[in-house]
Amino acid sequence: MTFDPDATGLAYRHYDPDEVVMGKRLEDHLRFAVAYWHSFAWPGGDPFGGQTFDRPWFPDTMDGARLKAEAAFEMFDLLGVPFFCFHDADIRPEGASFAESRKNFEEIIGIFERKMATSKTKLLWGTANLFSHRRFMSGAATNPDPDVFAWSAATVKNCMDATHRLGGQNYVLWGGREGYETLLNTDLKAEMDHMARFLSMVVDYKHKIGFKGTILIEPKPQEPTKHQYDYDVATVFGFLQRYGLETEVKLNIEQGHAILAGHSFEHEIALANALGVFGSIDMNRNDYQSGWDTDQFPNNVPEVALAYYEILRGGGFKTGGTNFDAKLRRQSLDPEDLLAAHAGAMDVCARGLKAAARMLEDGTLETMRRERYAGWKTPASTELLSSDLATIAAKVEAEGIDPQPRSGKQEILENIVNRYV
Amino acid sequence: MTFDPDATGLAYRHYDPDEVVMGKRLEDHLRFAVAYWHSFAWPGGDPFGGQTFDRPWFPDTMDGARLKAEAAFEMFDLLGVPFFCFHDADIRPEGASFAESRKNFEEIIGIFERKMATSKTKLLWGTANLFSHRRFMSGAATNPDPDVFAWSAATVKNCMDATHRLGGQNYVLWGGREGYETLLNTDLKAEMDHMARFLSMVVDYKHKIGFKGTILIEPKPQEPTKHQYDYDVATVFGFLQRYGLETEVKLNIEQGHAILAGHSFEHEIALANALGVFGSIDMNRNDYQSGWDTDQFPNNVPEVALAYYEILRGGGFKTGGTNFDAKLRRQSLDPEDLLAAHAGAMDVCARGLKAAARMLEDGTLETMRRERYAGWKTPASTELLSSDLATIAAKVEAEGIDPQPRSGKQEILENIVNRYV
Amino acid sequence: MTFDPDATGLAYRHYDPDEVVMGKRLEDHLRFAVAYWHSFAWPGGDPFGGQTFDRPWFPDTMDGARLKAEAAFEMFDLLGVPFFCFHDADIRPEGASFAESRKNFEEIIGIFERKMATSKTKLLWGTANLFSHRRFMSGAATNPDPDVFAWSAATVKNCMDATHRLGGQNYVLWGGREGYETLLNTDLKAEMDHMARFLSMVVDYKHKIGFKGTILIEPKPQEPTKHQYDYDVATVFGFLQRYGLETEVKLNIEQGHAILAGHSFEHEIALANALGVFGSIDMNRNDYQSGWDTDQFPNNVPEVALAYYEILRGGGFKTGGTNFDAKLRRQSLDPEDLLAAHAGAMDVCARGLKAAARMLEDGTLETMRRERYAGWKTPASTELLSSDLATIAAKVEAEGIDPQPRSGKQEILENIVNRYV
Amino acid sequence: MTFDPDATGLAYRHYDPDEVVMGKRLEDHLRFAVAYWHSFAWPGGDPFGGQTFDRPWFPDTMDGARLKAEAAFEMFDLLGVPFFCFHDADIRPEGASFAESRKNFEEIIGIFERKMATSKTKLLWGTANLFSHRRFMSGAATNPDPDVFAWSAATVKNCMDATHRLGGQNYVLWGGREGYETLLNTDLKAEMDHMARFLSMVVDYKHKIGFKGTILIEPKPQEPTKHQYDYDVATVFGFLQRYGLETEVKLNIEQGHAILAGHSFEHEIALANALGVFGSIDMNRNDYQSGWDTDQFPNNVPEVALAYYEILRGGGFKTGGTNFDAKLRRQSLDPEDLLAAHAGAMDVCARGLKAAARMLEDGTLETMRRERYAGWKTPASTELLSSDLATIAAKVEAEGIDPQPRSGKQEILENIVNRYV
Repeated sequence: MTFDPDATGLAYRHYDPDEVVMGKRLEDHLRFAVAYWHSFAWPGGDPFGGQTFDRPWFPDTMDGARLKAEAAFEMFDLLGVPFFCFHDADIRPEGASFAESRKNFEEIIGIFERKMATSKTKLLWGTANLFSHRRFMSGAATNPDPDVFAWSAATVKNCMDATHRLGGQNYVLWGGREGYETLLNTDLKAEMDHMARFLSMVVDYKHKIGFKGTILIEPKPQEPTKHQYDYDVATVFGFLQRYGLETEVKLNIEQGHAILAGHSFEHEIALANALGVFGSIDMNRNDYQSGWDTDQFPNNVPEVALAYYEILRGGGFKTGGTNFDAKLRRQSLDPEDLLAAHAGAMDVCARGLKAAARMLEDGTLETMRRERYAGWKTPASTELLSSDLATIAAKVEAEGIDPQPRSGKQEILENIVNRYV
Repeated sequence: MTFDPDATGLAYRHYDPDEVVMGKRLEDHLRFAVAYWHSFAWPGGDPFGGQTFDRPWFPDTMDGARLKAEAAFEMFDLLGVPFFCFHDADIRPEGASFAESRKNFEEIIGIFERKMATSKTKLLWGTANLFSHRRFMSGAATNPDPDVFAWSAATVKNCMDATHRLGGQNYVLWGGREGYETLLNTDLKAEMDHMARFLSMVVDYKHKIGFKGTILIEPKPQEPTKHQYDYDVATVFGFLQRYGLETEVKLNIEQGHAILAGHSFEHEIALANALGVFGSIDMNRNDYQSGWDTDQFPNNVPEVALAYYEILRGGGFKTGGTNFDAKLRRQSLDPEDLLAAHAGAMDVCARGLKAAARMLEDGTLETMRRERYAGWKTPASTELLSSDLATIAAKVEAEGIDPQPRSGKQEILENIVNRYV
Repeated sequence: MTFDPDATGLAYRHYDPDEVVMGKRLEDHLRFAVAYWHSFAWPGGDPFGGQTFDRPWFPDTMDGARLKAEAAFEMFDLLGVPFFCFHDADIRPEGASFAESRKNFEEIIGIFERKMATSKTKLLWGTANLFSHRRFMSGAATNPDPDVFAWSAATVKNCMDATHRLGGQNYVLWGGREGYETLLNTDLKAEMDHMARFLSMVVDYKHKIGFKGTILIEPKPQEPTKHQYDYDVATVFGFLQRYGLETEVKLNIEQGHAILAGHSFEHEIALANALGVFGSIDMNRNDYQSGWDTDQFPNNVPEVALAYYEILRGGGFKTGGTNFDAKLRRQSLDPEDLLAAHAGAMDVCARGLKAAARMLEDGTLETMRRERYAGWKTPASTELLSSDLATIAAKVEAEGIDPQPRSGKQEILENIVNRYV
Repeated sequence: MTFDPDATGLAYRHYDPDEVVMGKRLEDHLRFAVAYWHSFAWPGGDPFGGQTFDRPWFPDTMDGARLKAEAAFEMFDLLGVPFFCFHDADIRPEGASFAESRKNFEEIIGIFERKMATSKTKLLWGTANLFSHRRFMSGAATNPDPDVFAWSAATVKNCMDATHRLGGQNYVLWGGREGYETLLNTDLKAEMDHMARFLSMVVDYKHKIGFKGTILIEPKPQEPTKHQYDYDVATVFGFLQRYGLETEVKLNIEQGHAILAGHSFEHEIALANALGVFGSIDMNRNDYQSGWDTDQFPNNVPEVALAYYEILRGGGFKTGGTNFDAKLRRQSLDPEDLLAAHAGAMDVCARGLKAAARMLEDGTLETMRRERYAGWKTPASTELLSSDLATIAAKVEAEGIDPQPRSGKQEILENIVNRYV
């Protein structure tokens, strides 16, 4: 795989890792990560067609896995990305037994460890694939079969060990099969209890092994399931509270999943910030009009800017980052496509973040927001909030209160945003 | 208004209030309620057209309001429904001041009180309309203007008083404007805090006046707002927990709102039951393919049966009931349409509930559900749940655990349902 | 594969092929067909997981293909279905060349021919899979590469020959990849022209070989593509007209595809009847809230009844039938699931068709429809339609025309439907 | 109403009417129009709330209408827009009879005529509101009552006269009620025939009075109706062909309506160009996640650029233009909001069109598109298209044709677009 940015015209036009924005290098703001699975393990299939990509490392053997690791780190270097992410199943062939799969996995983790000793690319997060193999078809932690719970727990243990060993900054759980196809065969209450117990074990294990990274849950409303328990930010927050885990776990928010749940990406980020559980993002867009997960590379700067605006308002990433959980279109066969897609996406994000920073530094948006709520900063409003219905009702009549609406100025605010994007 | 069921062929074919199902009269199971607003106050408009209905009580005067009350109770009697529901704004003209509106309201409440002394129809719930008047355009409890919070609190106080006076069994809050049009002008955190404080005042006032009914929140994801805070059951539950209100407040779940949030109606009911917050339902369907609230009368027995199945599995209604928050299509101009719509809907619900009861009494579905999770009833699985990742991982390898998938039998379960509906 | 209907309780409860409805046997009304691909070739994968089913015939070899054919005809007999449908790719392994694939295909067609000599099951339609192999990733007839057009044309030729040889009653084209992922790389006009030319060749070849069946196009709006040219009934009709093919080609309408295009199934059927291009149906439902093709077996009798109502109003099937282009949920692993799914679906359809027939025989719905339009049966309205704007405008003022709305009676009509379903 | 662009910071930043792009002034490219209805007649209501705006001209009297006309032309001048658009019902109060409504209408048209004598603002198009009044609740041309057809025809006659008198460049028909709420009471075939006959009368009348403008149909899939006949571009084209009107009528395409039909805006424009029926646009965006018509001002430059790219590829506007069929959010109460919304939208469009022009002048996108289809420019491919299935099949085997996929380069193309937007 070679990549001549000049020949293809794909050199970065906006992303300079060392450019300083709001006192921090762009690289440290954006914390880009390449997703191992879509970039190296996905063969280009869809529900109506099979493999389109043809990579030398595709044979699902240990030799293939070693070659894939070489290719991956070569691309990380070409792109100059600071992070990558992986599932266990992306990096090793499935073995004939749990133990053999683990052995395969650990060998590749060893290769990663050696690669990372000389590469600038670190691990943003690791995760376990608890959804592709048929054993997970009815869930992992929520499976009606306790043996699948056990298998899943054992798998996560190994993936957490590997993430810890590689200095990963987060550990992610996406419950792709933690949901149902039909309520008719589902015990909602038991499944949620099992999922919570599983998550508690993960948190306990983190502390036991001294892993300092963040445990992240990635919400998604549906697909592959009819209903997925980690529906959206609000749902996951309610779940965490219910089981006393809201201070231990944060969220990895994906644009495409936000869309499928009926929310804008910036809504999910802003809500997670308001609830104190914002962690990281998967920056891959969904086609607004395709009702499944299209996982496309981001390409709309104004939208990306609004997402980073909420991230910056919340103080920016801590352990989190910008992961491209994005796949090439299945017609984009060439290695050049993979590089160009990442380079273009990084440029889009750089433009978006720089626009967001300018909006924040300019301050007009925040000033207007504060002014809108200025009435709530008075002693009278403090008194109001500590009052009661009967007292308030008496006061409304006594004082002849008659509130008059004031403009919400949405179009003017949108015009202001357009000065920066 | 006259209604000759024989002539129009609209007599009940399936709803006999005195029929005993699972040891209870159908009337006591279903607890039907007519919604005052759609049935008597809504003029037939939509975003592209104005009034189509022509009712003698439409002049928005006290005379009109008195005539409307007469017509409403006449229809309640014709239909033989045990309950009705109302907003303040449905039953009285807006006054020139808060005090005048209250006076208007109280006069009509007095009329209701006298009517109810001789009618069999009781009050399922009262509520306040905090969304139609322009003063609420930016929210009620979440308005940037504290005066609107105050106005809203005073309004709810009066509506709770009236509900209590009329012996209402619940008090409902639907936050139709508690949300936002654009994040750009919104302080999410402050608005949620204000909404929670408002709800706490409602709960306190309930106890203060000795109201024994249930406080209910009605979720809806959007429309009229771009985003509504009470998005769905899971979101509201998380909100209640966050502010310590989850034991004081339950949910009124509407089929159409469930659909708009991407859920089936039965999902929302089952989830509310699992979380211990199920209260009541609005049994009006949404067109699955219209992205706004179509509020149609229910007409699909198999779907209605699945909803009642979850209600019966949870023990049936306590203070809640089956409210038809349904409006006629705007072309259905005739009084006969209003009666026929209710009669047809009540028959559909009666068929649905009776089918649900047969499914539950037969027991096949529940037996199959239990069998699917039987593995979780063993000592080994109890031990598993109290174990930890490392112990489990060791056990998986030691015992060579290799879980094999078992059929979820969805089609067979759906066939079984079809024996009853 | 064995199937004891009594033991599993899966015997037909409503479908009796010999029951006479509106003067015709149910079997001749419904004309059920089993889809070879979903029932025998689909391994249970989805975008997030691989094979879950485990069938003895899955090895993609000629031996596997022969075994699959045995199993398929065994199941056809067990179910007693009068028809089946297939793609070339379902029944034979891909060869190393076009010629080898053809040879494989023809051998299996020979097996089918022998099986069909003694089976009651006939061929409803054949079709070519021009979407799964990577060569079709950018389209078949609409591919930017003329060689793919040629390959596709050759493939269809062979499939039409096979369909003709087996006495198939229709030949279907579903253009799963005839669309685009991005307009940026697409020549809309050229692609539509090529697609039309391809279809003309198909029509010419039909006549050349003396095939008496119907050429059918199956509309779908998207998935796998972002946009598919055969979007819905109206779009395909416009396309056929544009290229002069509207008398040669009819439509195969799928419930799930109708839903994805924003239409009800009965709308698409009614429109095809109004335009004279109704052909056949794929009777598999989509989950209304999943934005991809879920291809589930039908289970809602009232909905199915409305579809058959439109089919019966249009005179019923001619060469078409009721194909179950439905797949088991991927958790439904057992052969029993496959049989139960078909048996349940056939019962649902039988109930739906019988209800539709009763509605039609009763006549109330059609009487009410006619009465609504009675005004258009007068001489005055005939004159109106042959008039012109200026004359009409003069007349409206001269006669003081002032039209008064009349009820559309939607709820009453829905009540009437509910008497039958 | 005053508007100080410097004080509010709302002066144009990108739109300079005299800037020359691709040899034409920006004003002549974009041909902006203000919509009278949303800007001056809409009171801010939605399905859950009433009027929020408070304009001095709102009293629905002739005095109000005269004042409204003053305000409108004042705003046209402030904005410097070259065009406006109107419905009859926007500009005059409904009279007690058809004749009185006409008289009211003609008086205001007279005022317009005098205003336009000195204003630079011309009429882009006129249209008739055949959907708001209750008489149209069941359709206009498709109404079951022929009197409504007559009333509608007479209304359109008067609106065409007025459009002609004012030098309008197009006449538009949006069939907001030409559809159905339920198939159960609908005669699809008759309604489509009546709609076609109506449209033929419109075309005939155009020629009779010598109107040189374009007759435009505006597609929309649903809302207010469950199904609208003019669903999308492809559907309308099929309809026009069926009744022989495809050379007489073109399309006015709205972004929001395209979205509701499941299409991108640029798709609808590109398709209309491919079919030769592109006319004009309504440049107002829909919220992608709100399932109703949100009619917001455009604010996303990259999206707008892709729309203008397709318009410029098709040769730009002829009689059409860029109409803002956009309404303020109902919280945007102030006159300043109305001006800012238009100014911001015009800037967004100017940026979009200039980016589109640069993409077209640069030529990379078009070169890459041509190269993708280069295989179709050979003699062999011409021969292929004139061949037949049997010949092609023989050739595929004889020549051992084995097409190999080539990258569709979607991400690279999207990167190229991002250089310009």
